[in-house]
Amino acid sequence: MVPTTAPQTDAPRARGEYRKTARRREEIVDAALVVFSRVGFVNSSMSEIAKHVGMTVPGLTHHYPSKTDLLEALFVRRDLDANERLAGRLGIDMLRGLVEVAQRDELDSALTRMYAILAAEATDPGHPAHEYFRRRYALILEHVHAAFLEVEASGQLRPELTPIEAARAYVAFSDGLQLQVLYHQDGVSQPTSVRRLLESFLTTSL
Amino acid sequence: MVPTTAPQTDAPRARGEYRKTARRREEIVDAALVVFSRVGFVNSSMSEIAKHVGMTVPGLTHHYPSKTDLLEALFVRRDLDANERLAGRLGIDMLRGLVEVAQRDELDSALTRMYAILAAEATDPGHPAHEYFRRRYALILEHVHAAFLEVEASGQLRPELTPIEAARAYVAFSDGLQLQVLYHQDGVSQPTSVRRLLESFLTTSL
Repeated sequence: MVPTTAPQTDAPRARGEYRKTARRREEIVDAALVVFSRVGFVNSSMSEIAKHVGMTVPGLTHHYPSKTDLLEALFVRRDLDANERLAGRLGIDMLRGLVEVAQRDELDSALTRMYAILAAEATDPGHPAHEYFRRRYALILEHVHAAFLEVEASGQLRPELTPIEAARAYVAFSDGLQLQVLYHQDGVSQPTSVRRLLESFLTTSL
Repeated sequence: MVPTTAPQTDAPRARGEYRKTARRREEIVDAALVVFSRVGFVNSSMSEIAKHVGMTVPGLTHHYPSKTDLLEALFVRRDLDANERLAGRLGIDMLRGLVEVAQRDELDSALTRMYAILAAEATDPGHPAHEYFRRRYALILEHVHAAFLEVEASGQLRPELTPIEAARAYVAFSDGLQLQVLYHQDGVSQPTSVRRLLESFLTTSL
């Protein structure tokens, strides 16, 4: 059987269309970040975001039906950035990567605040972002657990702790710490605190 | 100078009035908890809460102008309960009290969820509950810091940690852990996790 050539001749055009759409979606997410940061998530509107990116509201909702979808897209982009920073790093070096992610988060308090609010709201199983957060936490836990397993195998985990406990403590601490930083408790630095907590689980320094 | 007796004869009546008002305010806060728990904070209305406690909306708003004020009153009541559990306890025994508070919180996931959402929203300095949370975090940090100072003085704090670091880590961990419990991560128990974290800072078990 000779395969039809149609997909091949169409493919470049389809890829071009895809790239154009992907770029458009990026621009929309950029605009959402600008608007959210300026007036806050609650006070911003889809029409304002549409205006900022030069689209109609139906054009915008075709790509992202709601503000929550846009916020989720922002978080997904942030997750991809974190994944790139952590990719291929193992054990202690992966833990060092977590400190770097905390450094990045500290620079973007507007998004961090929106993240904290949405993560709390979305604990309700009926919330549109519930599945995103549930999967996200499970994934982070899995990766950090893997890192602590490697740390344990190399004899660098304090013997009183299990890798899963250390991983769970990191995930919980990291979220709670964001709140403390946002309330401007004197002397709370996110990356330093994350490093110190991780070190308190280890027999070595980071 | 002979003091007037007027305040003395009026006092019992004033105290009676005060008690009546205090009781009424308690009933309102109870009703708010019932309504919030049934339909959620966002979906509940002042008129529904007024109806539940047998008042008019103006009668209700005279005591509590908004839903946020009612929610804050619920948290204040929960804080008072925690204060009673922790009163007079020092050092290691105070840390044991923190585990007991975690046990109590685990039983009340509806209020814990509302707490998590409001604590995140109120990071905005313009939020009506901002001051409440800022003061609350400062107060908790102060008390837990005092406990860790005592723990350090009795040689039970791990020498790599400072009391303020341990206290900050507890406060952050405790908030973040609530989220993890609400997302039903397998095997996350709030009191057990709090105990294990506190123990990881100590040279003894709790």
